Amino acid sequence: MSHPAQRLDDVVHQRVRLGILAILAEAQRADFTYLRDTLELTDGNLARHLRVLDEAGYVSLDKTFEGGRPRTWVSVTRSGLVAFEEEVSALQDLLARVQQMGQETGVD
Amino acid sequence: MSHPAQRLDDVVHQRVRLGILAILAEAQRADFTYLRDTLELTDGNLARHLRVLDEAGYVSLDKTFEGGRPRTWVSVTRSGLVAFEEEVSALQDLLARVQQMGQETGVD
Repeated sequence: MSHPAQRLDDVVHQRVRLGILAILAEAQRADFTYLRDTLELTDGNLARHLRVLDEAGYVSLDKTFEGGRPRTWVSVTRSGLVAFEEEVSALQDLLARVQQMGQETGVD
Repeated sequence: MSHPAQRLDDVVHQRVRLGILAILAEAQRADFTYLRDTLELTDGNLARHLRVLDEAGYVSLDKTFEGGRPRTWVSVTRSGLVAFEEEVSALQDLLARVQQMGQETGVD
Protein backbone atom coordinates (compact mmCIF):
# COMPACT_ATOMS: atom_id res chain seq x y z
CA MET A 1 0.00 0.00 0.00
CA SER A 2 3.02 2.29 0.20
CA HIS A 3 3.09 5.20 -2.24
CA PRO A 4 6.16 7.29 -3.14
CA ALA A 5 4.28 10.44 -2.01
CA GLN A 6 4.66 9.18 1.56
CA ARG A 7 8.44 9.55 1.26
CA LEU A 8 8.17 13.28 0.51
CA ASP A 9 9.27 15.48 3.41
CA ASP A 10 7.67 18.92 3.66
CA VAL A 11 10.94 20.53 4.78
CA VAL A 12 12.50 19.68 1.40
CA HIS A 13 9.42 19.22 -0.79
CA GLN A 14 7.87 22.67 -0.26
CA ARG A 15 8.05 24.50 -3.60
CA VAL A 16 10.40 27.36 -2.65
CA ARG A 17 12.70 25.18 -0.54
CA LEU A 18 12.91 22.56 -3.29
CA GLY A 19 14.00 25.35 -5.65
CA ILE A 20 16.63 26.62 -3.19
CA LEU A 21 18.07 23.12 -2.69
CA ALA A 22 18.02 22.35 -6.42
CA ILE A 23 20.06 25.51 -7.10
CA LEU A 24 22.48 24.76 -4.26
CA ALA A 25 22.86 21.14 -5.40
CA GLU A 26 23.93 22.51 -8.79
CA ALA A 27 26.05 25.42 -7.56
CA GLN A 28 27.29 24.24 -4.12
CA ARG A 29 26.74 27.79 -2.86
CA ALA A 30 24.87 30.88 -3.97
CA ASP A 31 24.36 34.32 -2.52
CA PHE A 32 21.08 35.59 -1.15
CA THR A 33 20.49 37.97 -4.07
CA TYR A 34 21.02 35.26 -6.69
CA LEU A 35 18.54 32.92 -4.98
CA ARG A 36 16.02 35.72 -4.54
CA ASP A 37 16.20 36.81 -8.19
CA THR A 38 16.34 33.33 -9.73
CA LEU A 39 13.31 32.13 -7.77
CA GLU A 40 11.57 35.54 -7.97
CA LEU A 41 11.03 35.85 -4.23
CA THR A 42 10.81 38.75 -1.83
CA ASP A 43 13.63 39.18 0.70
CA GLY A 44 11.25 38.22 3.50
CA ASN A 45 9.97 35.09 1.81
CA LEU A 46 13.46 33.83 0.97
CA ALA A 47 14.68 34.61 4.50
CA ARG A 48 11.77 32.65 5.99
CA HIS A 49 12.49 29.54 3.91
CA LEU A 50 16.23 29.76 4.53
CA ARG A 51 15.48 29.81 8.25
CA VAL A 52 13.50 26.56 7.94
CA LEU A 53 16.33 24.92 6.01
CA ASP A 54 18.95 26.27 8.42
CA GLU A 55 17.01 24.97 11.45
CA ALA A 56 16.84 21.54 9.79
CA GLY A 57 20.62 21.66 9.30
CA TYR A 58 20.27 21.54 5.50
CA VAL A 59 21.97 24.85 4.67
CA SER A 60 24.57 27.04 6.30
CA LEU A 61 24.59 30.83 6.06
CA ASP A 62 27.75 32.90 5.91
CA LYS A 63 27.25 36.65 6.35
CA THR A 64 30.19 38.56 4.89
CA PHE A 65 31.10 42.11 3.97
CA GLU A 66 32.42 42.51 0.45
CA GLY A 67 33.38 45.99 -0.78
CA GLY A 68 31.80 47.40 2.37
CA ARG A 69 28.42 45.82 1.60
CA PRO A 70 26.80 42.89 3.38
CA ARG A 71 26.58 39.69 1.37
CA THR A 72 25.05 36.44 2.61
CA TRP A 73 26.34 33.20 1.11
CA VAL A 74 24.16 30.11 1.35
CA SER A 75 25.69 26.63 1.13
CA VAL A 76 24.05 23.22 1.21
CA THR A 77 25.28 20.92 3.98
CA ARG A 78 26.04 17.21 3.63
CA SER A 79 22.73 16.30 5.32
CA GLY A 80 20.95 18.80 3.10
CA LEU A 81 22.32 17.03 0.04
CA VAL A 82 21.24 13.66 1.42
CA ALA A 83 17.72 14.97 2.12
CA PHE A 84 17.57 16.47 -1.37
CA GLU A 85 18.71 13.17 -2.93
CA GLU A 86 15.96 11.33 -1.01
CA GLU A 87 13.40 13.81 -2.34
CA VAL A 88 14.72 13.38 -5.90
CA SER A 89 14.51 9.60 -5.53
CA ALA A 90 10.90 9.76 -4.26
CA LEU A 91 9.93 12.11 -7.10
CA GLN A 92 11.57 9.83 -9.67
CA ASP A 93 9.57 6.87 -8.33
CA LEU A 94 6.36 8.92 -8.35
CA LEU A 95 6.98 10.08 -11.94
CA ALA A 96 7.93 6.56 -13.05
CA ARG A 97 4.55 5.28 -11.81
CA VAL A 98 2.73 8.04 -13.67
CA GLN A 99 4.72 7.48 -16.86
CA GLN A 100 4.11 3.74 -16.67
CA MET A 101 0.41 4.46 -16.36
CA GLY A 102 0.64 6.75 -19.42
CA GLN A 103 2.23 3.97 -21.48
CA GLU A 104 -0.37 1.42 -20.40
CA THR A 105 -3.33 3.62 -21.22
CA GLY A 106 -1.90 5.52 -24.19
CA VAL A 107 -2.32 8.85 -22.35
CA ASP A 108 0.72 11.05 -21.76
CA MET B 1 16.99 33.39 -14.84
CA SER B 2 13.84 31.24 -14.87
CA HIS B 3 13.99 28.05 -12.80
CA PRO B 4 11.59 25.09 -13.09
CA ALA B 5 10.72 25.50 -9.39
CA GLN B 6 8.86 28.68 -10.34
CA ARG B 7 6.41 26.59 -12.36
CA LEU B 8 5.38 24.55 -9.31
CA ASP B 9 1.91 25.42 -8.02
CA ASP B 10 1.27 24.88 -4.31
CA VAL B 11 -2.26 23.62 -4.96
CA VAL B 12 -0.85 20.62 -6.83
CA HIS B 13 2.71 20.46 -5.49
CA GLN B 14 1.85 20.11 -1.80
CA ARG B 15 2.96 16.63 -0.71
CA VAL B 16 -0.44 15.12 0.18
CA ARG B 17 -2.26 16.68 -2.77
CA LEU B 18 0.45 15.50 -5.18
CA GLY B 19 -0.06 11.98 -3.83
CA ILE B 20 -3.86 12.22 -4.24
CA LEU B 21 -3.55 13.44 -7.84
CA ALA B 22 -0.90 10.84 -8.71
CA ILE B 23 -3.22 8.06 -7.51
CA LEU B 24 -6.21 9.54 -9.36
CA ALA B 25 -4.14 9.98 -12.53
CA GLU B 26 -3.41 6.25 -12.35
CA ALA B 27 -6.84 5.06 -11.26
CA GLN B 28 -9.22 7.71 -12.69
CA ARG B 29 -11.22 7.46 -9.45
CA ALA B 30 -10.69 6.11 -5.97
CA ASP B 31 -12.76 6.04 -2.83
CA PHE B 32 -12.01 8.05 0.28
CA THR B 33 -10.92 5.01 2.29
CA TYR B 34 -8.46 3.85 -0.37
CA LEU B 35 -6.81 7.29 -0.56
CA ARG B 36 -6.69 7.60 3.21
CA ASP B 37 -5.09 4.16 3.67
CA THR B 38 -2.68 4.35 0.73
CA LEU B 39 -1.35 7.76 1.78
CA GLU B 40 -1.61 6.94 5.51
CA LEU B 41 -3.67 10.01 6.38
CA THR B 42 -6.29 10.77 8.98
CA ASP B 43 -9.86 11.32 7.80
CA GLY B 44 -9.59 15.00 8.70
CA ASN B 45 -6.32 15.56 6.89
CA LEU B 46 -7.53 13.87 3.70
CA ALA B 47 -10.84 15.79 3.84
CA ARG B 48 -8.96 19.09 4.18
CA HIS B 49 -6.77 18.43 1.13
CA LEU B 50 -9.70 17.17 -0.95
CA ARG B 51 -11.49 20.42 -0.15
CA VAL B 52 -8.55 22.43 -1.52
CA LEU B 53 -8.50 20.32 -4.70
CA ASP B 54 -12.29 20.50 -5.05
CA GLU B 55 -12.29 24.30 -4.66
CA ALA B 56 -9.62 24.51 -7.39
CA GLY B 57 -11.86 22.39 -9.64
CA TYR B 58 -9.27 19.59 -9.80
CA VAL B 59 -11.35 16.78 -8.28
CA SER B 60 -15.02 15.96 -8.01
CA LEU B 61 -16.59 14.18 -5.06
CA ASP B 62 -19.50 11.79 -5.36
CA LYS B 63 -21.13 10.77 -2.08
CA THR B 64 -23.01 7.51 -2.45
CA PHE B 65 -24.62 4.88 -0.29
CA GLU B 66 -23.51 1.34 -1.04
CA GLY B 67 -24.91 -1.52 1.02
CA GLY B 68 -26.45 1.06 3.35
CA ARG B 69 -23.06 2.66 4.11
CA PRO B 70 -21.78 6.03 2.90
CA ARG B 71 -18.99 5.87 0.36
CA THR B 72 -17.29 8.88 -1.20
CA TRP B 73 -15.78 8.48 -4.65
CA VAL B 74 -13.12 10.95 -5.73
CA SER B 75 -12.42 11.57 -9.41
CA VAL B 76 -9.87 13.81 -11.10
CA THR B 77 -11.34 16.40 -13.47
CA ARG B 78 -9.97 17.34 -16.88
CA SER B 79 -8.43 20.55 -15.47
CA GLY B 80 -7.04 18.55 -12.56
CA LEU B 81 -5.27 16.26 -15.03
CA VAL B 82 -3.90 19.26 -16.93
CA ALA B 83 -2.60 20.83 -13.69
CA PHE B 84 -1.05 17.51 -12.69
CA GLU B 85 0.64 17.17 -16.09
CA GLU B 86 2.09 20.68 -15.72
CA GLU B 87 3.45 19.73 -12.31
CA VAL B 88 4.95 16.51 -13.72
CA SER B 89 6.56 18.50 -16.54
CA ALA B 90 8.08 21.04 -14.13
CA LEU B 91 9.39 18.24 -11.89
CA GLN B 92 10.90 16.45 -14.88
CA ASP B 93 12.72 19.65 -15.89
CA LEU B 94 13.93 20.19 -12.34
CA LEU B 95 15.18 16.59 -12.06
CA ALA B 96 16.82 16.78 -15.50
CA ARG B 97 18.86 19.80 -14.35
CA VAL B 98 19.93 17.98 -11.20
CA GLN B 99 20.83 14.81 -13.10
CA GLN B 100 22.81 16.80 -15.67
CA MET B 101 24.70 18.39 -12.79
CA GLY B 102 25.39 14.91 -11.37
CA GLN B 103 26.86 13.73 -14.66
CA GLU B 104 29.05 16.81 -15.00
CA THR B 105 30.51 16.54 -11.52
CA GLY B 106 30.48 12.75 -11.13
CA VAL B 107 28.17 13.00 -8.10
CA ASP B 108 24.85 11.18 -8.15
